[in-house]
Amino acid sequence: MNICTYSYEEYLHLVKSFHGTLAPGLLIGGFMVDLAMKHLPEGEFFDAVCETPVCLPDAVQILTPCTIGNGWLSVVSFGKFAITLYEKYGGRGVRVYLDTGKLNQWPEIRDWYLKKKKKNEQNSELLFAQIKDAGHGLFSIQHVQVDPEKVRRKKMGPVAVCPVCREAYPTRDGEKCRSCQGDSPFTEIKPIS
Amino acid sequence: MNICTYSYEEYLHLVKSFHGTLAPGLLIGGFMVDLAMKHLPEGEFFDAVCETPVCLPDAVQILTPCTIGNGWLSVVSFGKFAITLYEKYGGRGVRVYLDTGKLNQWPEIRDWYLKKKKKNEQNSELLFAQIKDAGHGLFSIQHVQVDPEKVRRKKMGPVAVCPVCREAYPTRDGEKCRSCQGDSPFTEIKPIS
Repeated sequence: MNICTYSYEEYLHLVKSFHGTLAPGLLIGGFMVDLAMKHLPEGEFFDAVCETPVCLPDAVQILTPCTIGNGWLSVVSFGKFAITLYEKYGGRGVRVYLDTGKLNQWPEIRDWYLKKKKKNEQNSELLFAQIKDAGHGLFSIQHVQVDPEKVRRKKMGPVAVCPVCREAYPTRDGEKCRSCQGDSPFTEIKPIS
Repeated sequence: MNICTYSYEEYLHLVKSFHGTLAPGLLIGGFMVDLAMKHLPEGEFFDAVCETPVCLPDAVQILTPCTIGNGWLSVVSFGKFAITLYEKYGGRGVRVYLDTGKLNQWPEIRDWYLKKKKKNEQNSELLFAQIKDAGHGLFSIQHVQVDPEKVRRKKMGPVAVCPVCREAYPTRDGEKCRSCQGDSPFTEIKPIS
């Protein structure tokens, strides 16, 4: 059982290195990306959508050319365990999702995924064994038409220097940058001199 | 001039491999992360915030343990070229930003960053040479207190099976999942049989 061009063990190594831990969601995510890649519609360039920010974006970033920073991966926060790869101009795509109708064959995955057990009640070894055993068996596929305008990040447009903080910002945000409009999550601390 | 534990050439190689292209923003971003790492406050675990989804998140994901999928990297879409690393429990952090007051020393970077030249008028070779020459010289540093609640992704909470699509979703979203409430960017296509 390979995951894209990697053996399962090679993929585990990549996950550990990039994501830090062998998260169950990322192992399942590897099989999801692999299945989606095997069902790509025709076309040369593909963008990706994850329907949750949890784990799945890292499977896409490890296994495909799509990243957050290059804009080819978008995340919509629906809290759903699904990945879509779509032809970037026409929007024709394949959506792979975790099919709850198939979970009963792998009860440890079911209980983890549907949060039926507390973390200390889970059997990690059994969970990992069932994930490897299940492979593509947890998923179903949909052929979809994506509306790229709804998922792709907006172009930044013209920039100006904010009259308050003197940093550059997109003028579409108004007469000053969003931080200086009060949205900043930061408070500056004057270093003790 | 190193970028974290890599030589500049090694970093270019990583950028090409992960991000696909040698984007100027990602090269500048490498120096930003490097400078932030050299000014970390005390503490063991650090989370990151990028103030734009463009390029910078990939510099953080390449050079630190923080990724989108593990939740240690957050993106706020202010369109500002700044990275903050902060101690994850107390919120004490360092913010590195591109200081427009320092741009005049490197006119090709200035014209690229402030969009004063069209793409076909830019001199890429000169731009890359100025980026390498400038290094940390483009930035200023702020010591900040981060409100982690404003940037960190929310816990998913309890899940249920959506009565419409039968996929799992977070119950905080209501009686059905957000896709089935009409927010989906996808339309299912019935495969021709």
